Amino acid sequence: MRVRYAETDQMGVVYYANYIVWMEVGRVELFRSLGFNYSDMERDDGVLFAVLEVHCRYRFPARYDEEVLIKTWVKSANTRTVSFAYAMSPAGTGRLLAEGETRHIFLGRDMRPTRLPKKYHAAFGLTDGE
Amino acid sequence: MRVRYAETDQMGVVYYANYIVWMEVGRVELFRSLGFNYSDMERDDGVLFAVLEVHCRYRFPARYDEEVLIKTWVKSANTRTVSFAYAMSPAGTGRLLAEGETRHIFLGRDMRPTRLPKKYHAAFGLTDGE
Amino acid sequence: MRVRYAETDQMGVVYYANYIVWMEVGRVELFRSLGFNYSDMERDDGVLFAVLEVHCRYRFPARYDEEVLIKTWVKSANTRTVSFAYAMSPAGTGRLLAEGETRHIFLGRDMRPTRLPKKYHAAFGLTDGE
Amino acid sequence: MRVRYAETDQMGVVYYANYIVWMEVGRVELFRSLGFNYSDMERDDGVLFAVLEVHCRYRFPARYDEEVLIKTWVKSANTRTVSFAYAMSPAGTGRLLAEGETRHIFLGRDMRPTRLPKKYHAAFGLTDGE
Repeated sequence: MRVRYAETDQMGVVYYANYIVWMEVGRVELFRSLGFNYSDMERDDGVLFAVLEVHCRYRFPARYDEEVLIKTWVKSANTRTVSFAYAMSPAGTGRLLAEGETRHIFLGRDMRPTRLPKKYHAAFGLTDGE
Repeated sequence: MRVRYAETDQMGVVYYANYIVWMEVGRVELFRSLGFNYSDMERDDGVLFAVLEVHCRYRFPARYDEEVLIKTWVKSANTRTVSFAYAMSPAGTGRLLAEGETRHIFLGRDMRPTRLPKKYHAAFGLTDGE
Repeated sequence: MRVRYAETDQMGVVYYANYIVWMEVGRVELFRSLGFNYSDMERDDGVLFAVLEVHCRYRFPARYDEEVLIKTWVKSANTRTVSFAYAMSPAGTGRLLAEGETRHIFLGRDMRPTRLPKKYHAAFGLTDGE
Repeated sequence: MRVRYAETDQMGVVYYANYIVWMEVGRVELFRSLGFNYSDMERDDGVLFAVLEVHCRYRFPARYDEEVLIKTWVKSANTRTVSFAYAMSPAGTGRLLAEGETRHIFLGRDMRPTRLPKKYHAAFGLTDGE
């Protein structure tokens, strides 16, 4: 992902809320790599991932036009909630720009808590016993 | 409306797409001053104002923490479309930061063109003959 | 502060990163109520508040056109860093939409850590002994 | 470029100001394909492209997670100003989502109008006679 001019602020670096947007980009690409698509999940299964909590620690400012790699993984999951972790670095370096977590609850179309449909269990590392 | 840090870019001034967001803020406040609320209109009457066109001319850059006044008015309207004009100035000055227009078409809940409900005609300067 | 259309997402509620932008709005207004202006501080004293950490817990989704009150206060401060806390509610209610904290370090124009200038100590509750 | 959740609004489609942000993404990639980098130009040559005017016509709404192709080209240029044109389509289709133009003036570090440095003339189709 390449930093957009729109994402900088007058300090000359990326505005702090944009890292939170990037976490979403990382999440969506993680879903894609797990073999499904958040968009279809929302439309076909009526399952929304509502955010309960976000936490971000800023290590080093990202700059305009820099290529940023967002590493995203499932930190923990059960049939009701899931937590993702994120590490953002300039492409080709091990240097950390920011790292963080988000915690989500599954909601149905009625905006009430629901369980993650079975077909997604494996993708989130849930075994049948859970 | 006060300029947010988030709205600046590394040039030290407001990022150009944010003026387009401000036009929306001006529109909503115009609606409120005309005695209705876009939010209710969307929910109760199922009428959406879909944007067809936007045009903005930038005169002078707005800066962080500046108080900006957005003057908004109906430029022309019929039962199918409406155009708004905007003039943005620092509060208490006549100096122009930016000016522009947007043109909108009325859509129903099915996302197809519709006519503006009669109860809103007067607010948009439409007389019964139209 | 009134919720902008731009701030909603296709879930029909405010996009989660925008609460982080609102924290900044709250911070700036807190500064103003403490008798100074972040903008002047940045320009005249060359002091930047760089964000080290942000944490937000989401309780209830904010909706388009809702008036939101952002209560902001200094949680703790020393001459090197400051933490702010935030509580966001719909105006006129005690209901919580979201709450959170941010932690900041003071940077000079050279982007290196610096101490908060003495003239701001009182505003942040710092006594001379610190 | 893939549409982000952050870029949608409660109409379920991309918020109209985001197409203006995408134009910037198209511009930057055009610069890169012309053999230079806007970031270096700003830093090394002190040349800024300040926006004078933006115009966008919306044809069809873009949706979340859609892959969007931004075709960008120089519409006209002289040593003082440049205009770019844009056409945005879903990847793999000829269907138009939006099209538009931006007009820019070259500014120096002092924020006053300047001429485009000679080394960039060829990239913008300027011949020595101009």
